[in-house]
Amino acid sequence: MESQVLERKSSTIMSKTLIKKARLITASDDTRADLLIDGEKIAAIGMDIDARTADVVIDATDKLLLPGGIDNHTHLDMPFGGTVSSDDFFTGHRAALFGGTTSHVDFCIQPKGHTLRRSLEMWRAKADGKAAMDYGFHVAITDLTDAVMEEIRDLPSMGVTSIKLFMAYKGALQVDDTTLFKCMRVAKESGVLTMVHAENGDAIDILIKDALAAGHTTPDWHERTRPPELEAEATNRAIALARAAGDAPLFIVHVTNEEALNAISRARARGQRTYGETCVQYFYFTRNNLNGSRNDPFEGAKWVCSPPFREHNDQVALLRGIRLGDLMIVSTDHCPFNYKTQKILGAESFAAIPNGVPGIEDRLVMLWNAAVLTGHISPSKFVELTATNPAKMFGLYPRKGTLSVGSDADIVIWDPVVRHTVSAATSHMNIDYNLYEGMQVTGKAEKVFLRGSLVVDGTSWQGTRGGGRFMARASALLA
Amino acid sequence: MESQVLERKSSTIMSKTLIKKARLITASDDTRADLLIDGEKIAAIGMDIDARTADVVIDATDKLLLPGGIDNHTHLDMPFGGTVSSDDFFTGHRAALFGGTTSHVDFCIQPKGHTLRRSLEMWRAKADGKAAMDYGFHVAITDLTDAVMEEIRDLPSMGVTSIKLFMAYKGALQVDDTTLFKCMRVAKESGVLTMVHAENGDAIDILIKDALAAGHTTPDWHERTRPPELEAEATNRAIALARAAGDAPLFIVHVTNEEALNAISRARARGQRTYGETCVQYFYFTRNNLNGSRNDPFEGAKWVCSPPFREHNDQVALLRGIRLGDLMIVSTDHCPFNYKTQKILGAESFAAIPNGVPGIEDRLVMLWNAAVLTGHISPSKFVELTATNPAKMFGLYPRKGTLSVGSDADIVIWDPVVRHTVSAATSHMNIDYNLYEGMQVTGKAEKVFLRGSLVVDGTSWQGTRGGGRFMARASALLA
Amino acid sequence: MESQVLERKSSTIMSKTLIKKARLITASDDTRADLLIDGEKIAAIGMDIDARTADVVIDATDKLLLPGGIDNHTHLDMPFGGTVSSDDFFTGHRAALFGGTTSHVDFCIQPKGHTLRRSLEMWRAKADGKAAMDYGFHVAITDLTDAVMEEIRDLPSMGVTSIKLFMAYKGALQVDDTTLFKCMRVAKESGVLTMVHAENGDAIDILIKDALAAGHTTPDWHERTRPPELEAEATNRAIALARAAGDAPLFIVHVTNEEALNAISRARARGQRTYGETCVQYFYFTRNNLNGSRNDPFEGAKWVCSPPFREHNDQVALLRGIRLGDLMIVSTDHCPFNYKTQKILGAESFAAIPNGVPGIEDRLVMLWNAAVLTGHISPSKFVELTATNPAKMFGLYPRKGTLSVGSDADIVIWDPVVRHTVSAATSHMNIDYNLYEGMQVTGKAEKVFLRGSLVVDGTSWQGTRGGGRFMARASALLA
Amino acid sequence: MESQVLERKSSTIMSKTLIKKARLITASDDTRADLLIDGEKIAAIGMDIDARTADVVIDATDKLLLPGGIDNHTHLDMPFGGTVSSDDFFTGHRAALFGGTTSHVDFCIQPKGHTLRRSLEMWRAKADGKAAMDYGFHVAITDLTDAVMEEIRDLPSMGVTSIKLFMAYKGALQVDDTTLFKCMRVAKESGVLTMVHAENGDAIDILIKDALAAGHTTPDWHERTRPPELEAEATNRAIALARAAGDAPLFIVHVTNEEALNAISRARARGQRTYGETCVQYFYFTRNNLNGSRNDPFEGAKWVCSPPFREHNDQVALLRGIRLGDLMIVSTDHCPFNYKTQKILGAESFAAIPNGVPGIEDRLVMLWNAAVLTGHISPSKFVELTATNPAKMFGLYPRKGTLSVGSDADIVIWDPVVRHTVSAATSHMNIDYNLYEGMQVTGKAEKVFLRGSLVVDGTSWQGTRGGGRFMARASALLA
Repeated sequence: MESQVLERKSSTIMSKTLIKKARLITASDDTRADLLIDGEKIAAIGMDIDARTADVVIDATDKLLLPGGIDNHTHLDMPFGGTVSSDDFFTGHRAALFGGTTSHVDFCIQPKGHTLRRSLEMWRAKADGKAAMDYGFHVAITDLTDAVMEEIRDLPSMGVTSIKLFMAYKGALQVDDTTLFKCMRVAKESGVLTMVHAENGDAIDILIKDALAAGHTTPDWHERTRPPELEAEATNRAIALARAAGDAPLFIVHVTNEEALNAISRARARGQRTYGETCVQYFYFTRNNLNGSRNDPFEGAKWVCSPPFREHNDQVALLRGIRLGDLMIVSTDHCPFNYKTQKILGAESFAAIPNGVPGIEDRLVMLWNAAVLTGHISPSKFVELTATNPAKMFGLYPRKGTLSVGSDADIVIWDPVVRHTVSAATSHMNIDYNLYEGMQVTGKAEKVFLRGSLVVDGTSWQGTRGGGRFMARASALLA
Repeated sequence: MESQVLERKSSTIMSKTLIKKARLITASDDTRADLLIDGEKIAAIGMDIDARTADVVIDATDKLLLPGGIDNHTHLDMPFGGTVSSDDFFTGHRAALFGGTTSHVDFCIQPKGHTLRRSLEMWRAKADGKAAMDYGFHVAITDLTDAVMEEIRDLPSMGVTSIKLFMAYKGALQVDDTTLFKCMRVAKESGVLTMVHAENGDAIDILIKDALAAGHTTPDWHERTRPPELEAEATNRAIALARAAGDAPLFIVHVTNEEALNAISRARARGQRTYGETCVQYFYFTRNNLNGSRNDPFEGAKWVCSPPFREHNDQVALLRGIRLGDLMIVSTDHCPFNYKTQKILGAESFAAIPNGVPGIEDRLVMLWNAAVLTGHISPSKFVELTATNPAKMFGLYPRKGTLSVGSDADIVIWDPVVRHTVSAATSHMNIDYNLYEGMQVTGKAEKVFLRGSLVVDGTSWQGTRGGGRFMARASALLA
Repeated sequence: MESQVLERKSSTIMSKTLIKKARLITASDDTRADLLIDGEKIAAIGMDIDARTADVVIDATDKLLLPGGIDNHTHLDMPFGGTVSSDDFFTGHRAALFGGTTSHVDFCIQPKGHTLRRSLEMWRAKADGKAAMDYGFHVAITDLTDAVMEEIRDLPSMGVTSIKLFMAYKGALQVDDTTLFKCMRVAKESGVLTMVHAENGDAIDILIKDALAAGHTTPDWHERTRPPELEAEATNRAIALARAAGDAPLFIVHVTNEEALNAISRARARGQRTYGETCVQYFYFTRNNLNGSRNDPFEGAKWVCSPPFREHNDQVALLRGIRLGDLMIVSTDHCPFNYKTQKILGAESFAAIPNGVPGIEDRLVMLWNAAVLTGHISPSKFVELTATNPAKMFGLYPRKGTLSVGSDADIVIWDPVVRHTVSAATSHMNIDYNLYEGMQVTGKAEKVFLRGSLVVDGTSWQGTRGGGRFMARASALLA
Repeated sequence: MESQVLERKSSTIMSKTLIKKARLITASDDTRADLLIDGEKIAAIGMDIDARTADVVIDATDKLLLPGGIDNHTHLDMPFGGTVSSDDFFTGHRAALFGGTTSHVDFCIQPKGHTLRRSLEMWRAKADGKAAMDYGFHVAITDLTDAVMEEIRDLPSMGVTSIKLFMAYKGALQVDDTTLFKCMRVAKESGVLTMVHAENGDAIDILIKDALAAGHTTPDWHERTRPPELEAEATNRAIALARAAGDAPLFIVHVTNEEALNAISRARARGQRTYGETCVQYFYFTRNNLNGSRNDPFEGAKWVCSPPFREHNDQVALLRGIRLGDLMIVSTDHCPFNYKTQKILGAESFAAIPNGVPGIEDRLVMLWNAAVLTGHISPSKFVELTATNPAKMFGLYPRKGTLSVGSDADIVIWDPVVRHTVSAATSHMNIDYNLYEGMQVTGKAEKVFLRGSLVVDGTSWQGTRGGGRFMARASALLA
């Protein structure tokens, strides 16, 4: 049974929504209460709030109330590998909202030769007029000049408190250790968090060239040329550099394997400010998926992303990582490319397959099924991984990421029992396939509020193109 | 400046108290809001709750609001070593409340030959008419018959969901592996949590006898005869037995050293349901304290407890343990014996010194100073360690342990800046010394509410002898 | 081609044998040289020893010369489980010699109530007149009285420098921690090495009783009731007790699994005098073997030994253990029981199956195939594991265990290329089955010398019933 | 009492030397025997070799016979930091021989733009006519062209089976990961061992520049700008690259700290062909030595080498490393610079201090004192670390590195009890200071034989300038 709108007083300005009898989930608490939204904010949580104070009253008995998800790792409208990721800031946002994610932080990639300020303007322009949910940006440094070094110090004044460095993609995004180390030091001084894509690009570059020279062109070679030890190596290297930089805070994105995770765990055990993220798809797929199907061997291209999918024991390790906290966030690295028109660019060479997979819409339900329903984590831990920790780490807390009085009313009414089948046909992402096609899952975002406004109601889109706002972010809460 | 009572409408039945503008700390959140107490419960949390709804209004600007502390490891009115611990269920409770702890779970020790039911009656009788805060009991099994095995299954119906086994104190409380293993298995089936005091009592017994035979009688020999490897060993053994029992949930009390902690970390990394506790005093003292002072070599007796104090590197490890979650609770093992009249029983032999130290009143402030003010943990983590996790682990959540609507209004208004000096002279525990005598500390419980009633107001006792209630506990929340 | 006896001068007293052109393998060296045996000793090793100095000259081109194997873990003529192991001190010795093992240390089990001296007399009587190779004894303590404690101090004077304690077999051989700890301390003071069978017998006893009560009687339940964590636990416990005993030297026999090995590795990394042994069969079999065959489900009984066979990952760990040295010896725990007449005692209950497997004859060839031919270890490491380390650890070095001038001429001429099939039909052990039945292997002891006398020549038995000698052993070389 | 030359038959051609009654130490054995040298080789080892067969007979009762030391890490006549290391191939050799080292492998550094062949010619020319002991070369690759890649394949034909890559010394010797990875792969295919100097040169370069910019010029800043985590990082990186190269054999030189060692231990535990070396000085000194003395703060320059000296706990870890085998060789990295005339170049800037310390003469005695006399290792282990393992790893076994029949008669008669004081005044190295100045030590090389010739006899030099030979080396023995 869906949550019921019991009454609706006014159709004009919906200023106050009262959600009654829900099970409120925060990163620490799991209790039943009423929640009152006043305008854009959560105004009150009470044992029995008088319905007369609200314009709309929703009975949420048997439903969960979750803070809206925050996806801090996405690539919308992203030029990469000779094409552009297929979701823009409207289609991607709409899909995210259907999935229960109400804000995200995307990567602004500095084009070589550009200032960071100019780069940010370019990326903000992509979102302007399209955004349907709230958004922020990390800046990926690709061309570090002295002037850019100084600009890093100014990033917080532009609402940007995190930079990203790529240790892979040689000849394109990759930076060397000198750049990485310099950035870490200035970032630390400036209240900016350093994020790294950790793979050893030098070795990968040689492995790819050799594989192609040997005539290996199929998608599975994408994985064979990016072995896990090269991810673990770069992870360990970034950690050591951050330590030598005086414990610069370090965020390792999309951790995929046990050994990389172990490097993070060692750092954290000695007290270093190191934080790990994984993506929901890594709980589901392995290198075997890169082999494609019998009918279509190239189908493995759908699963081409970096770092690639690993093995079963790595999935076990990732579950341990989120359970114990060494992996504190589960994001998506959403970077969709259509199979028939974009992935196909790599038909002759795995190295030409656009790198990236879709998932911004699927994150909550797939993590719920992989980790909560299997008993590995509690609903509170789920909220921590998908909303509270992203908010704290990326300077959005307490505005976002929790169900607290005074916070933005970004709220998901979650139906914990509904069963359905994941499919591209019913997804809202602008892409011709879904990684999880055909999987039977339980749980769904039933109603989604963005700053107090109902933007998704079951299968009905109620959101607004252009209704999303840029979020100027504070520095990370690291304690 | 103290939090101000702005108005008080009625002196008769104080049904509603409104605390305004405080910084509310839960295990995950740290936000500013108003909190309304209605009767015994937290009724509402809101952005700006109308003061007219309340009988008493308190301005808590610049104060923190914490859930009342829960101390799940205490020994009040406990016969041990030929004497009785010096705090009873009134003096201990009053002291706890002054320190910001509003409920506890004490150990009912099964006298040999008695049923568990009878044992519980004995212990409840100790509390009857005296209790000033809420209390529950674990049962320590010392004499496992078939009948007692069956009784373990019935414990939840008596409101008791945790048992304790001692792997040390040979000839007194110690049980063998057969008993431990049997208890774990029946406990697991019955929704009962197994707790262990982990030290190898067989080896300790020999070490003590030999030390005495060699003429070593001073308090430092207490520590020398209980080396850390024997604690680590028993910890590892209990974990292995719990695993062989089909992953019986296991709670290791008072972890003192790195190696014991490592055993717990290994278990948790592989997914075993193993949980660790340490006590606040272990962050402060080392084996050196057992040496006493130049004027009074016997003074080391004040620090005689089991397991004993260790070394500096162990303190570093314990901080790591609470930071990363392998140690989830910080309790006290409060078991006070007066120095001049009780500890003195061991003047001729360290083995005759009553084992135990005081601390029920000091826990919050000392942990605040050791871990929060030093930057190791956040205020939220502090709440998790002292209230939320104890509540979840011992079946009191969400009634206790958090600041959630619907929960008992067990609340501490915490002054985070006041500086003062710890001293037996200003403490309320019924004992002639204080472990932390003379230490300068920051932070203090300013006002303390038990189920909505103000029981401590600064230095003023407002509580009620007999006002505490027995808490029937549910099974642990383990996810 | 077999090594050729080139000339033989005298058929009466064969005082000097010269082996020419062999590849001599010691634990560190692998070189070509001639070796001269004079009487019972290795008299010289030279580049080209004059054949005229010898009575017999053997051309060993293309052969390896190995020191005779030492098996420090055997149970000949051993009463256990209501029957007696099927090899006595003649049949077992003859089989060992055929396999290239020229001496062993067996376990004298103290019958309860007996002195150690009397126990040793009983065991020496078993060997008297039968022994065909050299032998020594460990003493297994089962009944520790004060008098027995004193006897431990005298063991070296009886030529015994190692004691064994069982942490399993409750109600039979098992000792408690008090006994174990006391023994370790007195052993350390007396130059005696403590060996332990490490499994938690208390928990196993309950698991067995429960399994039987539930109607589980098949051989696979032997393994299910002895899970690896209970071996790892006891291993860790013994290590902790040895540490608390002031770093008493500790030898852990028959390590079977990764976690137990890890406990040993941790101890060794911190410098504790801890030494591990595994048995060759653990490289070959897993718990699956306990399931028996389709035709004969009870056949799993052939693989019933304690600790039981584990999993593939444990075999990988054991290979790591011998490669890195944490496992320093590979023995057999040879304790044979005929399938049809002895193992059958457990047809109705796995708990009644005599515990033990044969292997004294198969050790060298099976380890050669599992570890040398697979590239995990070198021939020198093979010699170290099978001869040199046993000799050093059990006080036989340099008399035994190496190819050094002055040492006993216990020598194996090893054919490294001959291929053959292992079978009970061609084995010499007094038992009706072979664990490795039907396996194709490479390598074989071609000629075997015991103190200079050729005792095995291909398939021909040249040894002497009663020709073996008791070896009084010195203390272990531990550095 | 010195070993006595009992008789000497001929003063012309001393073809046969018999050493009687010595305690022969090999990596596995420790036995008493006579040893006969015939020409350049060890001809026989026997129980009682007839003195009439020898030209010279030496009574070595109470002495040890060790294989001559092999130092595989030296820099003689090495241009570095604007100067040249102060020992050439004669002075360095003479000093080495006095210390008991009879052969070494030096580093030929490829000058940029040169072929490897030409580089080797340059380095061989340095030794020609000077060498007094046997020598070989590693080649350090500094400029990897395609032609050089091909040359690596030819190195074994030039008698060179090991290459060295520097991950530090930015702008000078440092190579990037692409170069390192390519070299590892071709080396693996060619039977060539890859050696690395593991420090992250990029980060160190920045730290140095910043320190100097901040006015920090004293020698202690040498260590402050090369923190241990940057050595551990590079160690881990080299291991990962070697693994991605298909398990290319990897030799990590001069390991100084626990964390770097742990990276090696992890690799070895999973079976990777990774080998570690440390240098004897790292057992003796810490970062404190870089502070110099009160009278001469610059004196710390004497201890300037890379990687720098660390802390006490690292020394404990290094002892663990040699004990357990993860560090398999103890060398010197002998690279002497006179204090008054060369180290002084860095008076104004620590970065200008020539990097390197002397030690080729001191290695054996200092390791004997640090590790054997302290009980950490046995004399056999000492031989393994200083001779046998270097010989096996660098393709000199069994010609060198052991006391085996047929091996070169490179032999040290070691006096294990003589006490003396280390001093530059009595040293033979061409340098004005000694790291160990004034230390009281026990043990000394009394007589040293190189290929059968007595080259050092107490304090008397009997060797020959030009008498050393180039050693063409085989591939490493890795099993």
